[in-house]
Amino acid sequence: MDNPIGIFDSGIGGLTVVKQLIRILPFENLVYFGDTARLPYGTKSEKLIKQYALEDAAFLEQFGIKFLVVACNSASSVAVDMLQASLNIPVTGVIEPGVRAAIKATNNRRIGVIGTTATILSDAYHQKIKELDPDSEVYGQPCPILVPLVEEGWLDEEITRLTIRKYLAPLMENDIDTLILGCTHFPVIEEIIQNEIGGQIKLIDSGEETALVVRERIKTLEIGRNSLERGEVQFYVSDIPKKFDEIGTRFLGHPLVNAKRVDFDNFLISRGGAIHAPLETA
Amino acid sequence: MDNPIGIFDSGIGGLTVVKQLIRILPFENLVYFGDTARLPYGTKSEKLIKQYALEDAAFLEQFGIKFLVVACNSASSVAVDMLQASLNIPVTGVIEPGVRAAIKATNNRRIGVIGTTATILSDAYHQKIKELDPDSEVYGQPCPILVPLVEEGWLDEEITRLTIRKYLAPLMENDIDTLILGCTHFPVIEEIIQNEIGGQIKLIDSGEETALVVRERIKTLEIGRNSLERGEVQFYVSDIPKKFDEIGTRFLGHPLVNAKRVDFDNFLISRGGAIHAPLETA
Repeated sequence: MDNPIGIFDSGIGGLTVVKQLIRILPFENLVYFGDTARLPYGTKSEKLIKQYALEDAAFLEQFGIKFLVVACNSASSVAVDMLQASLNIPVTGVIEPGVRAAIKATNNRRIGVIGTTATILSDAYHQKIKELDPDSEVYGQPCPILVPLVEEGWLDEEITRLTIRKYLAPLMENDIDTLILGCTHFPVIEEIIQNEIGGQIKLIDSGEETALVVRERIKTLEIGRNSLERGEVQFYVSDIPKKFDEIGTRFLGHPLVNAKRVDFDNFLISRGGAIHAPLETA
Repeated sequence: MDNPIGIFDSGIGGLTVVKQLIRILPFENLVYFGDTARLPYGTKSEKLIKQYALEDAAFLEQFGIKFLVVACNSASSVAVDMLQASLNIPVTGVIEPGVRAAIKATNNRRIGVIGTTATILSDAYHQKIKELDPDSEVYGQPCPILVPLVEEGWLDEEITRLTIRKYLAPLMENDIDTLILGCTHFPVIEEIIQNEIGGQIKLIDSGEETALVVRERIKTLEIGRNSLERGEVQFYVSDIPKKFDEIGTRFLGHPLVNAKRVDFDNFLISRGGAIHAPLETA
């Protein structure tokens, strides 16, 4: 099935998920939408995030996608079930795959989660871990400074190492043996984090785990692309911010070319306006 | 005249301006509105920032304000003239006062400006300086990491000193003798910045300069409050984020108490909906 896999995020952090999809499913076609004009989602209300998620999905549906990946932690935490209920294709977010991998990886059932302030305060990782393994202890740590550090590209810097050390100290004191990277920006600094916390703690890249889940479900559903030619990857964004290519390339791991800007307001008008979540799930 | 001075900002950074107003105009009544539910403004379109500015001003008008201070760099850069045209009270933003003070302070006419990425890329400080003194050279430096550093309260930290040093190095190479703090968060770390760049460079706190302009204009217009009792200060916000009191207290310089949450959607509905900018200024 040549139809592409659709991926959306509130911005370009989701490109770390695309990087893993390209690595793990090299023959699939992908189409990415980054809602750069309306980011961040994390500080928005649940109702508004659901509306945005439906609109992002509607944009991707134009490409006949066969699978939808919600590569955004905020949208994953509130909108995946609703999207699954309203679309006729399989949908996955990034939270459950990361959580399942962490539960599998931990020996002492002490799991740390790092993310933006919005993600950690939303408690989405904590709740999902407790749902799947009530005996696990979960320690969340908001790391807001790491996001601009990654976007600035201050990767090989003492500032970044000191910041990671300071943020992770309370988690280390709680004796975690597994750490979920609960922000799509953090795989960019995975190595630095691993160096700071030592090799005995397992890092879980939610994006990588999500790509593995997609591969599994595509196989089960028998909707994989039957070709040995590398898939095509298309990028759409609702705004092209400064340094977009530079930051995008850092996230994707290879040059990000040909990202197209979408006039999202016009797209919505052409469909008849905002797409509100159905009341029963709002 | 007992009527209060109104101040609005996209969030709580504007509290550093309130701090200066309290210091410089201790007998005036103040009413502050922080639009914490819709922040940041900097990444929004000019049209939307104008709409928000009109709505924030309309909220403050309910208190019979005699003066409006736009304590938000993004709104100051696009909405001050429009607000002045549509309101019957004097209006000032934070940009022009900061710029006038910098032009007065510089000897070598080499002025640096630091702010958020949105503020620096908007070129508002650069344009205003060039308008008032075309012979000045202006060097802008976005400092996005300083905002979460201040919000986290990492003030006496090596990380903060290293970050300031790294951001300011290109400005120092350009031999600036005056530096405008073009973000309402930065007065919180003014001392650390001064220590890093050395005492020979003059720091301009836009908030302080704005408070001085307000005092001057209130005097000229003869609308000052005729009382020797300290004025009342009221705080309203459209959302109360976590750590609001802690961060607010850091910005204000003394305990922030009794901030009230406003249901801003309902306020707008009660007025008949969004307040769009008049076409001739949009």
